[in-house]
Amino acid sequence: MSENPLPADQSAAIDAVAQSLAARYDMIRSVTLDLCADLEPEDFVVQSMPDASPAKWHLAHTTWFFEHFVLAPILEGYERFDGSYHHLFNSYYYSAGLMHPRARRGLLSRPLVREIIAYRRHVDDAMRMLLEQRADHAEVLPRVELGLQHEQQHQELLLTDSKHLFSLNPLRPPVRKSLDTPPATAAPEMEFLEQAGGAIEIGAAGNGFCFDNETPRHSALIPDHAIASRLVTNAEYREFMKDKGYARTELWLSDGWAAVQKHSWNRPLYWDEDCEGEFTLGGARAIDWDAPVVHLSYYEADAFARWADARLPTEAEWEMA
Amino acid sequence: MSENPLPADQSAAIDAVAQSLAARYDMIRSVTLDLCADLEPEDFVVQSMPDASPAKWHLAHTTWFFEHFVLAPILEGYERFDGSYHHLFNSYYYSAGLMHPRARRGLLSRPLVREIIAYRRHVDDAMRMLLEQRADHAEVLPRVELGLQHEQQHQELLLTDSKHLFSLNPLRPPVRKSLDTPPATAAPEMEFLEQAGGAIEIGAAGNGFCFDNETPRHSALIPDHAIASRLVTNAEYREFMKDKGYARTELWLSDGWAAVQKHSWNRPLYWDEDCEGEFTLGGARAIDWDAPVVHLSYYEADAFARWADARLPTEAEWEMA
Amino acid sequence: MSENPLPADQSAAIDAVAQSLAARYDMIRSVTLDLCADLEPEDFVVQSMPDASPAKWHLAHTTWFFEHFVLAPILEGYERFDGSYHHLFNSYYYSAGLMHPRARRGLLSRPLVREIIAYRRHVDDAMRMLLEQRADHAEVLPRVELGLQHEQQHQELLLTDSKHLFSLNPLRPPVRKSLDTPPATAAPEMEFLEQAGGAIEIGAAGNGFCFDNETPRHSALIPDHAIASRLVTNAEYREFMKDKGYARTELWLSDGWAAVQKHSWNRPLYWDEDCEGEFTLGGARAIDWDAPVVHLSYYEADAFARWADARLPTEAEWEMA
Amino acid sequence: MSENPLPADQSAAIDAVAQSLAARYDMIRSVTLDLCADLEPEDFVVQSMPDASPAKWHLAHTTWFFEHFVLAPILEGYERFDGSYHHLFNSYYYSAGLMHPRARRGLLSRPLVREIIAYRRHVDDAMRMLLEQRADHAEVLPRVELGLQHEQQHQELLLTDSKHLFSLNPLRPPVRKSLDTPPATAAPEMEFLEQAGGAIEIGAAGNGFCFDNETPRHSALIPDHAIASRLVTNAEYREFMKDKGYARTELWLSDGWAAVQKHSWNRPLYWDEDCEGEFTLGGARAIDWDAPVVHLSYYEADAFARWADARLPTEAEWEMA
Repeated sequence: MSENPLPADQSAAIDAVAQSLAARYDMIRSVTLDLCADLEPEDFVVQSMPDASPAKWHLAHTTWFFEHFVLAPILEGYERFDGSYHHLFNSYYYSAGLMHPRARRGLLSRPLVREIIAYRRHVDDAMRMLLEQRADHAEVLPRVELGLQHEQQHQELLLTDSKHLFSLNPLRPPVRKSLDTPPATAAPEMEFLEQAGGAIEIGAAGNGFCFDNETPRHSALIPDHAIASRLVTNAEYREFMKDKGYARTELWLSDGWAAVQKHSWNRPLYWDEDCEGEFTLGGARAIDWDAPVVHLSYYEADAFARWADARLPTEAEWEMA
Repeated sequence: MSENPLPADQSAAIDAVAQSLAARYDMIRSVTLDLCADLEPEDFVVQSMPDASPAKWHLAHTTWFFEHFVLAPILEGYERFDGSYHHLFNSYYYSAGLMHPRARRGLLSRPLVREIIAYRRHVDDAMRMLLEQRADHAEVLPRVELGLQHEQQHQELLLTDSKHLFSLNPLRPPVRKSLDTPPATAAPEMEFLEQAGGAIEIGAAGNGFCFDNETPRHSALIPDHAIASRLVTNAEYREFMKDKGYARTELWLSDGWAAVQKHSWNRPLYWDEDCEGEFTLGGARAIDWDAPVVHLSYYEADAFARWADARLPTEAEWEMA
Repeated sequence: MSENPLPADQSAAIDAVAQSLAARYDMIRSVTLDLCADLEPEDFVVQSMPDASPAKWHLAHTTWFFEHFVLAPILEGYERFDGSYHHLFNSYYYSAGLMHPRARRGLLSRPLVREIIAYRRHVDDAMRMLLEQRADHAEVLPRVELGLQHEQQHQELLLTDSKHLFSLNPLRPPVRKSLDTPPATAAPEMEFLEQAGGAIEIGAAGNGFCFDNETPRHSALIPDHAIASRLVTNAEYREFMKDKGYARTELWLSDGWAAVQKHSWNRPLYWDEDCEGEFTLGGARAIDWDAPVVHLSYYEADAFARWADARLPTEAEWEMA
Repeated sequence: MSENPLPADQSAAIDAVAQSLAARYDMIRSVTLDLCADLEPEDFVVQSMPDASPAKWHLAHTTWFFEHFVLAPILEGYERFDGSYHHLFNSYYYSAGLMHPRARRGLLSRPLVREIIAYRRHVDDAMRMLLEQRADHAEVLPRVELGLQHEQQHQELLLTDSKHLFSLNPLRPPVRKSLDTPPATAAPEMEFLEQAGGAIEIGAAGNGFCFDNETPRHSALIPDHAIASRLVTNAEYREFMKDKGYARTELWLSDGWAAVQKHSWNRPLYWDEDCEGEFTLGGARAIDWDAPVVHLSYYEADAFARWADARLPTEAEWEMA
């Protein structure tokens, strides 16, 4: 029973929200593990570059988030699973204390994957208890919401980082074995849709969760413009390449041109050298020419747009679209 | 049956040698796995620095050696376990073709450890067949001998590299759980033993296996000198440190002093910052002050010798001793 | 006489413009040399970092601009001063052909300073002839105007780069000997002036010279805001430093904090370690606490603003102010 | 007059030695300036790589040697030319105090060349006085001798470093204008001369000046061997290149092969890309195919020797020859 009894109806409302949140918690947390279903212990450990993290780290770090920001300060009597984990799985949150250096996450063969799974179970059990008993605490609902959004961000990173790692392996294993190739569909004709400009409001409107970089809501001025009716396809990008797009200085921003030279860019990140196949989460596949082109840097997108006698939309134009 | 039948007695002699070699083969190959008995799949994958290799790579590379230099060219009908392994587990042997870049061995989460174990079994089975059937082939015995010596070199590297990896982990796990601390014994008094100089022969004498850098046997001239009666102890090295050995330019070779500055060297590699404990294959332990000091660079040994009003022995002096 | 005779009155108008431009040309070109009056030949050669250029390079590159874009294509019979200079003094203009690598400009002890001065004289003589004879050519006036604006940009760089070079010399010589210390004046009280927001037009309005990054003119939306009545002083910035501004993570953008760590920033670029003196174009001087703080990076300015419970103005707000 | 009068005959002997040393001092010091006769002030300043020094630095550093180790401690009343020069022109002599970082010697446009010339004159005047008045001081003769040997070492470096700098300049100016091309002479047939081995004494024999790395004199054992009757010519080295010497792994030491890959070595340092011309102290010239090949690294020399079915001589073999 909570220390500060609330009026019965308010308490019931909180209970309902808490129950619904507990269900979402279970669902989102189990999705994270599902995404790793085809990974073997060896796959969880490697860090393919300083900007990427091992899958194991993602599993542990998201769990640490709930332990450190929710359970430890709020759930009375909660015992941390392992005292050393705070140092190991804290991230860029300078405010939460010193941390294991980011670029060295891949040196940690221990704790083992099964220990991290046990860590997740330990925290999940405690979280269920907390959502039953302490949903009235003012910080519980917003922090759990934040933790779940954070978990979903890391689901995306987990896939991105695993894809990068597997792409470097000459064996080119799939991150997910049963990922079906999406059915090929012919891309519709691209049209440019005229848009009347004006001042619009962009940014989080305040009803529901948002990250801090979605605030504050503010006015943005949009000029009259036209925007494409669909995304650029692989086939269209191939035209840019055939037209020597990567070799024509005048198409690139100065920093972009320097990047092309430095990294020897000449095709999208995961395309094979022969530009017929590409590496996907489901393994190596033939390029679907009608699918939207992906894994382009800002500079490549910008050069493509200039080549196509267009420009990239601004954030506000994109949000309006 | 071999193509070129040998006289019966010669054939019997070869069989005996082959049987003995087969026994050594089994023994040495199983020692390699024994050394990994306490490693988990995660531990086999990580490369702690460009000069080190993952344990998995050592297991596979030594196996590739037998497959590539013995089985493939000699055992009729031998089928390689996996066609991609040649590229992955070839090493600095430029002459054996292109290879996966050394510094990127740690990016290979696949093949899995259990697949590498199966690879070892596949090769071991074929090797046993070869030693039974083809011991008469002129290349078999010398190549198998070389392969076993090579395997033993990698046993040493496997321990060295695993120790380095585990030393970087804040959890400081032991590479080998059941490694007893050797009993402490007081070091005997150090004496300097006078040695009369002269010309001696050094290098492999020709009876038995040797590596190419042990040849050719040649004469070396040794001056009259005195050599210490035992190795330098941790306690003695600590005296050097207390006497500000790491801060006194005049004790160091010029390149050594540059290394001290660049790497901020101030103690032996695996000593703790407080110089009371050290990291060993058996985990973190108190320093045994009577034990020989280890993990020193050439520059540190040289500076210590200069501090002690001595010098390092030459290779020939050391061999003579 | 020009090939396409113009009506007399138009021709007279062009002559008048050309005369006035010729006078500006002489004036601006001589200012460049005046700025170097206290430099010795040795000072013209050194490149203090890859992003800076030697003074000699600035003198030659601005001259090359007139030779390559004005004289060579327009003045019949013009002979380049030296055929090798195009390669040496071309700059980031990829479109004008290959060039000597930027980071290696400081390796060129030749051509000598006196040869570059002769180069300037050669080009200046030809330019005077061109402005007399070919002012009717449609490209002459705009290109000369661009060349002069370009020369003025490099005057600024010449001072900036020389200041950086001299600041690294323990002798700390002045770039300009006779530069008087500006009289100290107490900074007025800082106030925040309320500004009503709205849509304003920013960018070049079309009447007169502009650089391409000043176009196109476009609308920008400005919120209601308040802006400081004067620049931040050295004394105010010192308060930020005393309040541990360089050590407080929460005041900095993430990239800024990384830069603080990486470069060990702890004060404005040219302040002495004791924060009492600073290095100026006139040599080492006491810091004028009432003068505006200068040589701050964007990150430092941003952190200061956050510390002061304010924010930096946007480009549009600044232009409006 | 000296404080400790010596017997007249000893004093006369010292005077004679001092006079002869003074003459050598004048001669050697003026050679240093002669070597720079064709350099302009701009040429004295640039440091072409961290391992090289600007010519100005060599002029000043050798002068500082006499000032710091001879004049300051021995010549009563001697006044240093400039108090800041000790910091600027001290070198790797850690024992003589802190110094300006080696890799940043090229950032010092000041002091000017003419100031360094004045510094040399100031020190030379004082040295002449010292050699007249204080030759009886026990340290004078050995330190002056060391200073002159040191000066001669830096004469060699001054040429080496200037050659490197000028070689990087697309204008390829000569370091010395009047350096005649040596007359081409056909190289004699190469023979291998048999040498009987045995123990020989190598190192400084004690009669006359030597550097510390020429001591101690010691015995070395030399095997029976044969040594070439002359140096390897450019023509012979070209044969090695035509035989794909730079592309054949088996000819190179492991570190050498790594260097070939890393630096893209494919010809001697100063040969032109077309392997017809080379850069010399006298400027660009046609390669003299009968002249000895120069500017090879140890690895290149070793690979050439292996290709020629020979090996490099040891230091002792070379000294014996």
